[in-house]
Amino acid sequence: MNSEKIEIFDTTLRDGEQVPGCKLNTKQKLMIAEKLDKLGIDVIEAGFPISSPGDFESVSEISKLVKNAKVCGLTRANKKDIDVAAEALRWAKRPRIHTGIGTSDSHIQYKFNSTRENILERAVEAVKYAKSYVEDVEFYAEDAGRTDNAYLAKVCEEVIKAGATVLNIPDTTGYCLPEEYGQKIKYLKENVKGIEKAVLSCHCHNDLGLATANSIAGAINGARQIECTINGLGERAGNTALEEVVMILKQHKDLNLYTDINSKMLNEMSIMVSDLMGMPVQPNKAIVGANAFAHSSGIHQDGVIKNRETYEIIDPAEVGVNASSIILTARSGRSALAYRFKHIGYDITKDELDYLYQEFLKIADMKKEVKNDDLYMMMETSSRKIG
Amino acid sequence: MNSEKIEIFDTTLRDGEQVPGCKLNTKQKLMIAEKLDKLGIDVIEAGFPISSPGDFESVSEISKLVKNAKVCGLTRANKKDIDVAAEALRWAKRPRIHTGIGTSDSHIQYKFNSTRENILERAVEAVKYAKSYVEDVEFYAEDAGRTDNAYLAKVCEEVIKAGATVLNIPDTTGYCLPEEYGQKIKYLKENVKGIEKAVLSCHCHNDLGLATANSIAGAINGARQIECTINGLGERAGNTALEEVVMILKQHKDLNLYTDINSKMLNEMSIMVSDLMGMPVQPNKAIVGANAFAHSSGIHQDGVIKNRETYEIIDPAEVGVNASSIILTARSGRSALAYRFKHIGYDITKDELDYLYQEFLKIADMKKEVKNDDLYMMMETSSRKIG
Repeated sequence: MNSEKIEIFDTTLRDGEQVPGCKLNTKQKLMIAEKLDKLGIDVIEAGFPISSPGDFESVSEISKLVKNAKVCGLTRANKKDIDVAAEALRWAKRPRIHTGIGTSDSHIQYKFNSTRENILERAVEAVKYAKSYVEDVEFYAEDAGRTDNAYLAKVCEEVIKAGATVLNIPDTTGYCLPEEYGQKIKYLKENVKGIEKAVLSCHCHNDLGLATANSIAGAINGARQIECTINGLGERAGNTALEEVVMILKQHKDLNLYTDINSKMLNEMSIMVSDLMGMPVQPNKAIVGANAFAHSSGIHQDGVIKNRETYEIIDPAEVGVNASSIILTARSGRSALAYRFKHIGYDITKDELDYLYQEFLKIADMKKEVKNDDLYMMMETSSRKIG
Repeated sequence: MNSEKIEIFDTTLRDGEQVPGCKLNTKQKLMIAEKLDKLGIDVIEAGFPISSPGDFESVSEISKLVKNAKVCGLTRANKKDIDVAAEALRWAKRPRIHTGIGTSDSHIQYKFNSTRENILERAVEAVKYAKSYVEDVEFYAEDAGRTDNAYLAKVCEEVIKAGATVLNIPDTTGYCLPEEYGQKIKYLKENVKGIEKAVLSCHCHNDLGLATANSIAGAINGARQIECTINGLGERAGNTALEEVVMILKQHKDLNLYTDINSKMLNEMSIMVSDLMGMPVQPNKAIVGANAFAHSSGIHQDGVIKNRETYEIIDPAEVGVNASSIILTARSGRSALAYRFKHIGYDITKDELDYLYQEFLKIADMKKEVKNDDLYMMMETSSRKIG
């Protein structure tokens, strides 16, 4: 079976940037957009042009700058939003307008005080209007995760007729379980007339820690675009983490899905976004956390020293990290200690190791991490005994 | 159908504490253990007694302290480890020894330079030996995620015969997809003779961002214990996050699974562990991140103000957070601005709002967040115009 491509839609500059404290100026956004383009992103969502003059300017400047990726601007389902987005995207080589409306009963009732019929009409009108400006129109059915499947299929069918090229099925509240979200995508794939004319897209939120799993379940069931952000940034608990999705598809070749992302740039991309947005990445973050490739327990260190694949499935170099670290703590074993001594130039015998390991444990019980200077000191003070 | 209980096995003090930089002293471990006990944890893995004198002491002191939870100590599959663990657990009201060995071909070959037959023998011997000390013996089949299912079933069958009460099926490298991990648990449930005498346990790592999803897939397919840590701490990208698993089971009542965790303590528990271990929780961490209940985009704020459930599935009070925040940024809309003005004592008219919103956008484009003092200033400078 031929492998099929999953398009990566990055919304770091829209869904990520709208987070408290993540605001960037236009120059910073351009730095990130340029790097995203080099990373191999298929679609860069650059902002929500009508939301503020600064956002308009950023989308406009990013449109001029980006060479390969499609550049996308967000709108609500109304003419004013779409007019402004089209204007901001004017210079984009491959512009996309991303318009849509809430389709769950909760959104229809509480947010719009409207009816299913009226929402369907507004959706179709918005897509038609966006289509008058650009060829590539993505439609989002907000809160699709809690939208009745039959109604959702009806909306999808009508917006495809109106010209939508991509159908975004967001789990806006991060509520779905992977099985459930996958079934929703499958249902649409099987029940929407004309679905072959559009790409289904996953946009998952991480409120229950399931965004990545839901996106992968979507892709397995027929979605061919995943919306995500660097470091999983985004509203509340964030969006699907780009780096996780990319590495899952890379590791699990049996899924027969691939992306065009250059994974070797993931680490530097993560650092740039974290630094510019001032949003720390926790050490235990998958793929890009500081500890993602660090081994500290004795059992694990011993295994990794014997064969990297014992405990590591990803070669750190694959994501641009130089080497997996062996960090010495009270949980480290003899082989890790010998490894680190060798690393700093000491070949020690088994007897010496027996002695040094006891000394090491005493220091390690007092300190979080035993560093090279501690090792040098141990060699010095013990040299009379083991020399 | 009656709801079934999932036992929560917390390994913050063992798998979490062995992480670079997370080392705690005995007093700190006791503070955490006491709070874990109050939180409603079923099993507290207190440490790896043979690994260092400090760890031995901690397991011993925690055993004396804990009132309700089972207290568990980790060992490798050898007599010395088990002797020391039994000694450390001596004062526990409900002691559990957790012993085991690597069962994947990769571990058997590279780590043990052994054979499947020999590993099986060592597993059985270790369980029998542990059983001579305590009634409750958990067996871990390390790297079960990459272990051949038929061999894994054979190992499980034999260790149950030897007296194991719990079978831990770790995805040690964080490699599995949810579907795959769920199928592995299902296979064991259906193919291991005597499986009704033991509880299957999920122990998932987060290298690909799938630990939570894998654990839930395990529970759906018959596991009745989940091993996890506060804030998802642990080796490399960490373990399954306790707070995520608990809230998924609480939100998805249709799964017919529950835990005994008092979710209202999750936020304070997270803060205590983060502070004592010096391990920051990223703002976009599910459930316990600083932004988990913060709304900043105009569309979202408007929705939440009209009805909390539009964008929020979890009531923040359910996890011990006081209120969802409405943070004003350049992405905020009119309704959020009016809401915040009202909050600080100003009832403003629609015309006033039109004027103030334009002023607000100018400030918001310059600042990451518009705070109350900015609002007071806006009211002052604009009072001549709108007063």
